Amino acid sequence: MARIVQKFGGTSVADVERIKNVARRVQAEVARGNQVSVVVSAMSGVTNQLVKYCNDIAPLHDPREYDAVVASGEQVTSGLLALALQEIGLPARSFQGWQVAVHTDGAHAKARILGIDAQKLEESLGRGEVAVIAGFQGVSDSGRITTLGRGGSDTSAVALAAALKADRCDIYTDVDGVYTCDPRIVRKARKLDKITYEEMLEMASLGAKVLQTRSVEMAMNHRVRVQVLSSFEDVPGTLVVDEDEIVEKEVVSGIAYSRDEAKITVVRVPDRPGVAASIFGPLTDANINVDMIVQNISEDGQATDLTFTVGKADLERAVKVLSQHKETLGYSHLIPDENVVKISVIGVGMRSHAGVAQRMFKALAENGINIQVISTSEIKISVLVAEQYTELAVRALHTAYGLDKA
Amino acid sequence: MARIVQKFGGTSVADVERIKNVARRVQAEVARGNQVSVVVSAMSGVTNQLVKYCNDIAPLHDPREYDAVVASGEQVTSGLLALALQEIGLPARSFQGWQVAVHTDGAHAKARILGIDAQKLEESLGRGEVAVIAGFQGVSDSGRITTLGRGGSDTSAVALAAALKADRCDIYTDVDGVYTCDPRIVRKARKLDKITYEEMLEMASLGAKVLQTRSVEMAMNHRVRVQVLSSFEDVPGTLVVDEDEIVEKEVVSGIAYSRDEAKITVVRVPDRPGVAASIFGPLTDANINVDMIVQNISEDGQATDLTFTVGKADLERAVKVLSQHKETLGYSHLIPDENVVKISVIGVGMRSHAGVAQRMFKALAENGINIQVISTSEIKISVLVAEQYTELAVRALHTAYGLDKA
Repeated sequence: MARIVQKFGGTSVADVERIKNVARRVQAEVARGNQVSVVVSAMSGVTNQLVKYCNDIAPLHDPREYDAVVASGEQVTSGLLALALQEIGLPARSFQGWQVAVHTDGAHAKARILGIDAQKLEESLGRGEVAVIAGFQGVSDSGRITTLGRGGSDTSAVALAAALKADRCDIYTDVDGVYTCDPRIVRKARKLDKITYEEMLEMASLGAKVLQTRSVEMAMNHRVRVQVLSSFEDVPGTLVVDEDEIVEKEVVSGIAYSRDEAKITVVRVPDRPGVAASIFGPLTDANINVDMIVQNISEDGQATDLTFTVGKADLERAVKVLSQHKETLGYSHLIPDENVVKISVIGVGMRSHAGVAQRMFKALAENGINIQVISTSEIKISVLVAEQYTELAVRALHTAYGLDKA
Repeated sequence: MARIVQKFGGTSVADVERIKNVARRVQAEVARGNQVSVVVSAMSGVTNQLVKYCNDIAPLHDPREYDAVVASGEQVTSGLLALALQEIGLPARSFQGWQVAVHTDGAHAKARILGIDAQKLEESLGRGEVAVIAGFQGVSDSGRITTLGRGGSDTSAVALAAALKADRCDIYTDVDGVYTCDPRIVRKARKLDKITYEEMLEMASLGAKVLQTRSVEMAMNHRVRVQVLSSFEDVPGTLVVDEDEIVEKEVVSGIAYSRDEAKITVVRVPDRPGVAASIFGPLTDANINVDMIVQNISEDGQATDLTFTVGKADLERAVKVLSQHKETLGYSHLIPDENVVKISVIGVGMRSHAGVAQRMFKALAENGINIQVISTSEIKISVLVAEQYTELAVRALHTAYGLDKA
């Protein structure tokens, strides 16, 4: 008997018929002799409606009350799925965050899970029930309902799998696994059987929207085996596992892209020690994250150009902050540019293989694509290019690294 | 400074604009220097939708899961009203049933309040906040969400008013008070300034849908002063109070009618001791409530006819149950009749006034209306007549007891 945590997203529980379909998925897992807990999101569209109510009433709303409102969506689906399971003969019981309890900090609307008291769930499972847990929510020390932020149900599922020492955490979604690249752009993208936590983490934070970054981090930290698979098709998904579990590692596992970044070039800043700190200090104070950074070599020893990226949503604010400090910083002018895309190749194999970056630069050059900024980490290389090259660049790299399916 | 509990029903919080309107009502009460707690229902239509989901998934659903699902409606409005109050500058905090806590028994979907721990609410009020409480819901000993049954938010409000020792419990609704009769039928109906608990209780259980019966019982038991008033108009409502508070009592305060009953006549049952028990026993076993009963005088000493009323919804079942026992009971046949209405005159004054019943019978006779069944209590007289006489009978009685407005 294995212990499984299943998680179903909003599109999987979008209406009564789909909830019944989910119940049958759960039944199939129970029929395999497994002990099953299920984490559910709100019906798709419901959370957006609830958020809209909050925004319509109070644009700058108190996140404590926002949490009370939006957590209700998962409450509904947890109860309905329990009913659907009972209806097909499976004993089931729903649990809200406060009932489990899923303890979180008090950072409402983006709370972090501090610990899960699995006692009540263990009792429920011990009685032969399927435990159905409302995802996305928890309870703070002061007894208030908290939510984990968008996509938080993935995190709920992985955290519960860790607390229950589950053998696997199955994340059911509207795609059937993790692909070497976004199949909407690259028709030759292949579904991966396995991927390491580290790679998945890079994929998630670099734009692949299959799993929420925090849930992958948590899976990695607690060594929870995660499977991404489809709610609607009966095919095996992608296993996210420890590196040791993957015998034959590919050099590059996937290509990710993100259109969510924008570039700012600070032209002719004085070339002296501490200039980077003086530029990024005010941005940090304004809670603006800076991602890729490149500082040009000074041509005259007097001044240099500094280029970096921020989230597209933060661009306007970043320009405003820097403009306010123009005199202190002593630069000539700013060149903001929204017309960029960040493209990344990811793979744990590149730790032990040379020439991975070289192949990337060559493939882009052959296609006449100019690289604006480069950044690297142990298992990924990212470049910033003009947005209009997105599809061209991604497809060229997919082919260059031998990822195309036969 | 007075302490007030306000309750707003589903139509009063039906959308964002109405929730803002409720916030202004609360603000007005706070501006009078009062300490205010607010109980809210779900947005109108939401509870019906949630009930439908449950029924669609599992026609015979587990009431524990039903409760988890339907309680979410009040959770949403409590959070939204708290936001709307904050938005106009009033500190506010929402509370779910389990957060207060409102302790109930485990009779899911129709739970009864056992006690309310007012400590957290007292703290909230002490901080100068408006406490916004999700109506209709509580929590059982085993930590499950319970609901109080339809109209339960009235009961929540009165129970909270009792626990908080509030000076008044204002029930805001879509009518502006309690009338001498249903104004849709009797145009000359007058709004009552005051009505006693006992009268209100009879009105509520006899078909006037202004307040839920249980909430009136609870108000009476805890001597909570209740006011019924409109969410949409700024006019005084009706106070439901102790008899002592009403100086000049009317003999009759109101006329109520109910089309929810049906009549069954059991023809020629043997006229022997214990026959009533043998007929009503099987109905009680089938959980069917019997209301008015009349047993005719036996003409031949052998057999008699027995007539009684049951809820219209139970008629078919009642006939079936009695048919199953036909041989044992030894009656000739059954005459079911849905075409009836129960009309009642209500007034604490009739305790000390003779001739109240006589005036009723006379008024009906003058209008050619035949009385089928009569039942009386200390402060009300009810008669069953053919349904087509409803308006005629109600208007005639309204005039006969001098209730018409000038």
